[in-house]
Amino acid sequence: MRKSINTILISMLLCSPVTFAFDSVRRVEPLNWWVGMSNPKLQIMVTAPGAKQSWALKRYDGVTLESVEFGDSPNYAFINLNISEKAKPGELELSSNDDKYRFYYTLSARAKGSADREGFSTKDVIYLITPDRFANGDEHNDSLPTMKEKADPTFRGGRHGGDLAGVITHLDYLQKLGVSQLWLTPALLNDMETYSYHGYSITDLYQVDPRMGDNSLYKTLSVEAKARGIGLIMDMVPNHIGSEHPWMNDLPTQDWINYKGQFVGTSHARQTVQDTHASEFDKKRFTDGWFVPTMPDMNQRVSFLGNYLTQNAIWWIEFADLSGFRVDTFPYSDKTFLQFWLKSILAEYPNFNIVGEEWTSEAGISAYWQKGHQNKDGYESYLPTMMDFSLQQALVKALNEEENWNTGWIHVYQSIAKDFQFADPNHLLIFGDNHDMSRIYTQLHQNVKNTKLAMTLLLTMRGIPQLYYGTEVLLDNGESDDHGDIRIDFPGGFKNQQANAFTGEGLSREQREMQLYTEKLLEIRNNYPALQNGGLIHFSPFDEMYAYARGDEHPILIILNKGNVQKTVDMNRFAEIIRGKVSATELLSGQKYELENVMIGAKSALLLAL
Amino acid sequence: MRKSINTILISMLLCSPVTFAFDSVRRVEPLNWWVGMSNPKLQIMVTAPGAKQSWALKRYDGVTLESVEFGDSPNYAFINLNISEKAKPGELELSSNDDKYRFYYTLSARAKGSADREGFSTKDVIYLITPDRFANGDEHNDSLPTMKEKADPTFRGGRHGGDLAGVITHLDYLQKLGVSQLWLTPALLNDMETYSYHGYSITDLYQVDPRMGDNSLYKTLSVEAKARGIGLIMDMVPNHIGSEHPWMNDLPTQDWINYKGQFVGTSHARQTVQDTHASEFDKKRFTDGWFVPTMPDMNQRVSFLGNYLTQNAIWWIEFADLSGFRVDTFPYSDKTFLQFWLKSILAEYPNFNIVGEEWTSEAGISAYWQKGHQNKDGYESYLPTMMDFSLQQALVKALNEEENWNTGWIHVYQSIAKDFQFADPNHLLIFGDNHDMSRIYTQLHQNVKNTKLAMTLLLTMRGIPQLYYGTEVLLDNGESDDHGDIRIDFPGGFKNQQANAFTGEGLSREQREMQLYTEKLLEIRNNYPALQNGGLIHFSPFDEMYAYARGDEHPILIILNKGNVQKTVDMNRFAEIIRGKVSATELLSGQKYELENVMIGAKSALLLAL
Repeated sequence: MRKSINTILISMLLCSPVTFAFDSVRRVEPLNWWVGMSNPKLQIMVTAPGAKQSWALKRYDGVTLESVEFGDSPNYAFINLNISEKAKPGELELSSNDDKYRFYYTLSARAKGSADREGFSTKDVIYLITPDRFANGDEHNDSLPTMKEKADPTFRGGRHGGDLAGVITHLDYLQKLGVSQLWLTPALLNDMETYSYHGYSITDLYQVDPRMGDNSLYKTLSVEAKARGIGLIMDMVPNHIGSEHPWMNDLPTQDWINYKGQFVGTSHARQTVQDTHASEFDKKRFTDGWFVPTMPDMNQRVSFLGNYLTQNAIWWIEFADLSGFRVDTFPYSDKTFLQFWLKSILAEYPNFNIVGEEWTSEAGISAYWQKGHQNKDGYESYLPTMMDFSLQQALVKALNEEENWNTGWIHVYQSIAKDFQFADPNHLLIFGDNHDMSRIYTQLHQNVKNTKLAMTLLLTMRGIPQLYYGTEVLLDNGESDDHGDIRIDFPGGFKNQQANAFTGEGLSREQREMQLYTEKLLEIRNNYPALQNGGLIHFSPFDEMYAYARGDEHPILIILNKGNVQKTVDMNRFAEIIRGKVSATELLSGQKYELENVMIGAKSALLLAL
Repeated sequence: MRKSINTILISMLLCSPVTFAFDSVRRVEPLNWWVGMSNPKLQIMVTAPGAKQSWALKRYDGVTLESVEFGDSPNYAFINLNISEKAKPGELELSSNDDKYRFYYTLSARAKGSADREGFSTKDVIYLITPDRFANGDEHNDSLPTMKEKADPTFRGGRHGGDLAGVITHLDYLQKLGVSQLWLTPALLNDMETYSYHGYSITDLYQVDPRMGDNSLYKTLSVEAKARGIGLIMDMVPNHIGSEHPWMNDLPTQDWINYKGQFVGTSHARQTVQDTHASEFDKKRFTDGWFVPTMPDMNQRVSFLGNYLTQNAIWWIEFADLSGFRVDTFPYSDKTFLQFWLKSILAEYPNFNIVGEEWTSEAGISAYWQKGHQNKDGYESYLPTMMDFSLQQALVKALNEEENWNTGWIHVYQSIAKDFQFADPNHLLIFGDNHDMSRIYTQLHQNVKNTKLAMTLLLTMRGIPQLYYGTEVLLDNGESDDHGDIRIDFPGGFKNQQANAFTGEGLSREQREMQLYTEKLLEIRNNYPALQNGGLIHFSPFDEMYAYARGDEHPILIILNKGNVQKTVDMNRFAEIIRGKVSATELLSGQKYELENVMIGAKSALLLAL
């Protein structure tokens, strides 16, 4: 006798392609999958009361149900499918043994060339946005009755109403500025009581926060950006979730969260990962400890969770047509999991790019994590790109300190000299600031000329430059180093602002000049491949100057003078770059320079195309 | 017809075994050689007016003259011999083609086990002496008519009269203190006008300075030290010579000295050696530049010079029965030469130890030079041991700074954590101070208790500890950082001193306590192999303390409290070390400690043997 099952098809939309049994199956994740993936295996996590039981797959050509596994909670099932090459797009039908549940699961066709997508590279410049603070494109979603936290633009730690619609509206601005990649800090659901604006306390890894838009709008952003030559980089947070995540009320396994779901703080002692002398006590405390009580630290050693996070990452690439990931708090996750996660992603997308946040200026530690590095402990990492915190710190010191043999530019020179320790120094993400530190203009004590020098270096140095939104108009956090003040509202993105950086209206002369200078530098960088991927030769600091050349056949010689007076440059030291040439075009001014006698202005840069 | 040759056998003594033609052959180097060396080749450098001509070897079983080579000057010949396994000890007879010169050259027998000698190791503690400033054992050699500079004990930059006889006289003191290796800063001839006391401006690479003694006395020192279980480490200076070296009046080749014998200063930009982006301009300036005008920088790319320096090094090992080298300004020499020099030495003495001075706290740069390190540029170094400047700097900061998450002990913890970057972290020479920096007691602002903590760490940490003479009695350079004040006269080594550290007479109570404390620590280290070569596990700093364990089966847990108050130690964090044991013996006091409740005094150390 066949039991009666109430089944309502809720949605066939791309953003929510799952069909589930009426009021029963709470969640099915991933939301859908694709045929033609490199890995034929898929582990569907079903969340429903009493889901811990057998499940059956209705016959479907090319797809088999291999096993069903369970955790400790009675309310989850992990259904292992094999989706062979023969499988065609369509709807799978899965049902529980007790016939209480039945759901349909979409297998989609992949977009053409999806597997071969190129990730962001040295050809690109990345623009980093905290979307709550960039532009409010849809005021209707600022405060929603279903969400715990409402908008409060007057509170620096509150939500200000910025959203995906705001970013989409201003893509033309970014295109005109000249950037080619967009990294948004997380836009996924953060249904937390407070401080939800930053996005790092995710409570649903498969849904864009409704105050930002929805999954469909996120995809629209990707499409619209791509139409302007701009790729989309997603900020991934595999280390922790928000404490309001539903898992916290019903842990799938008892060890799903480190320290049994109770807060124990991390030591932040990142070096324990590499340190051959590290105690087990310290190693555990670093990797398993939580950042804060509102961010439960995931135990990715649980294979179900490892699979969940990996499939989640692949799902977003395929769904939203991404060009890269930025990985939050990279080394804090279990290192074996990181290996699995990265290897699995790169097996599907061999040319994809992923940049990890490893906040250290110790080259040995950062280099350890980069793909291709020979580690003495045998650990093989698959992370293509590292964030270059060393250069960021060096650049600030270089410009703030008086010049001497061991102060000033020497910091930048020594930081770049550490490249020999990296498997691939071109795959270092370089930046003056980001959302976790004071604005570069602030760090440089509101010195506009030094900020321009910093920007010049970042857009002409080896690596992949990243700008934080508003740096081009000298955003400033003043005396405060509160994160809410660093992530200040972009001028023109919100109501009742005096200035508008999108139109230029109301900007100070200095802000406008910085914006035009940034635009000019980006134009130069985009036009000269030598500045993107040319070789680098640099010269030890001399006479308050730092100089380096990019490119081999037609190099560009960059000279940065931080001195307060105009100088004559001793060009003899550059003989190996100049190789007998007598003149060059300076790219910022377009002027021709005779190389016999080169003058450089106070606190200025020369970009001499040879 | 046989021409008449005036030949006088000057000497058959071991310290000067060469016989030369009357008033003609100025120098024959090496002074002698040995049969049974691993490398059958020997290149004898003959210095004499008109030496640039053919030379002949009188028939000698097992020895052949393979070729004679020349430089630019008419006054040098480089005679290439092959000394086969068949050769027996004896006198070679060599004569010039024009029959003007004839000399006899001694081939000696090697001491038994010479090739297999063990170099200094983690079992040892090294005592570093500036011999001009340790003890004046022979006042007759203080001022010699043949030497340019006479003694002036009142001038901090002058010669104070210390000598080898002074060191020999006080070997019993060193034995009682408990050290097992002696490193003297160079004692070779420095016949310079001024500042000759430090020894780094060598004007004869084959002769001990007569104000120090002579080659024979140097050998006596080695023999007498060995009788007390103390090895002898020679300070080698392959980078430069003193400007009064005879070569400077008659360069063997025009390129014997960098920059054609004219002073151009080094940039000290050591990272150019590793830096893949370094300009040729900077690379040359660093390696070829001179330290100061009085120290001409040798161009070891000249093969004659490379051979000369290599044979010179081997000669001293074999002649003086050395247990190691310390290499001055290591990276400033040509890196290909360094490879050749080290490889050649270690081919003769595979278990010999050599420590290089690379003054950097950048682990990547230091690790690059250590034997066994996989360098990405393919460079293979053969240097067994590196000086650990990183730990030295970290230790001073750790003890001087107030404790916080990023200040204090964290520097030491992070420095040790860099070990994973080294091929062999046990082969790091660790020290609180040396002859080129302020005394550790001075660096620690005359804080005796912190100096004791530093000493405790140095004598219980991984690596090979090195003490600078007088640190055990709190020698202090006060406000001055002049090298002459750092290299202060050892109390008791010179006339008219108030205190005598050899007898204890006149020392302050604190000096005497430090001396006894050092002795006690050395006794403990010498008795516990775990402290010499046991594994290391360390713990991130906590509550103003830093702790680590040495040894595996019966570990010793070292706890250092820099706080100003007595504390109860939370022993739970050490569970992986304690492994269920309930008590331990504290080695400094000999007291038994119940591990349940361990108290540590203010600014104190515990060495808990488990």
